[in-house]
Amino acid sequence: MANAMTEPTSELLYLDDLHVGRRFTSRTHALDERQITAFASEFDPQPFHLDREAAKETFFGGLVASGWHTAAITMRLQVGGGLPIAGGLVGFGGEVAWPTATRPGDVLRVESEVVEVVPSRSRPDRGIVTVRSETRNQRGEVVQTATVKLLVPRRSRMDGAIPKSERR
Amino acid sequence: MANAMTEPTSELLYLDDLHVGRRFTSRTHALDERQITAFASEFDPQPFHLDREAAKETFFGGLVASGWHTAAITMRLQVGGGLPIAGGLVGFGGEVAWPTATRPGDVLRVESEVVEVVPSRSRPDRGIVTVRSETRNQRGEVVQTATVKLLVPRRSRMDGAIPKSERR
Repeated sequence: MANAMTEPTSELLYLDDLHVGRRFTSRTHALDERQITAFASEFDPQPFHLDREAAKETFFGGLVASGWHTAAITMRLQVGGGLPIAGGLVGFGGEVAWPTATRPGDVLRVESEVVEVVPSRSRPDRGIVTVRSETRNQRGEVVQTATVKLLVPRRSRMDGAIPKSERR
Repeated sequence: MANAMTEPTSELLYLDDLHVGRRFTSRTHALDERQITAFASEFDPQPFHLDREAAKETFFGGLVASGWHTAAITMRLQVGGGLPIAGGLVGFGGEVAWPTATRPGDVLRVESEVVEVVPSRSRPDRGIVTVRSETRNQRGEVVQTATVKLLVPRRSRMDGAIPKSERR
């Protein structure tokens, strides 16, 4: 199938292959308490990310993952086939929101959709693609939305996209 | 000094203590190649984050940290005194950008500034504070900007802000 709409794909895509509305779905990642506390110990050592008992007394009412941990797992799922861009995922930044907390036992999956494709005017070998992603848990609740701008290369004549007979 | 404008402080601040323009500076974090590749191995396994030699052939021309790693270190510096909010740093999300790559040997510091304070209408015990931060390396180059909305509690009558004689 040339255009796998929502399935993981091993085909690496260039700017030329992407269009607004193209969607991708990642594989899943199962999150547990150990992962949550390990990330938090290094990067976000707050009681609601570190200690199950102490977390009960906080705003969250229980242990939750750092939002930046959810963002990092989302990236891992996109790099691991959830957003198969040639040249890798090179982001300039974007917007992120965490409408629902991520908790131990959650199984996360990322759905990504191309929302803008802008070829570079000054550099014909590349462009900027804006991708909106939703990270959902096993109940379908959205734990993260993100809209990120990525640098994406154009397919060059040397990549095999053009038949040899047409190459200069 | 009651109002430490740009120095780390151990005083925990409530909504009542924050005003637009109040600034904070974190301590520093020294980043090395091992940290960069360890984070990338778990969350962002791409050649420009994993392998010094392979990275030379990429867009970045050398090993760089994942943007999400820079974001996580920024959080660590803010949690570690760089943004001393009572009740912890509870973020709903925001905008992030990485104008310059973070590289091995970088020493990062975060400067944060309150840009909006909005007391909740429905919940008099809290409000939303928007904080803009710049994460800079040892040359003063901005490696990350972020604007994040945080849930911040109001100082309650039970917190010791009111003299005992006035308590009911």
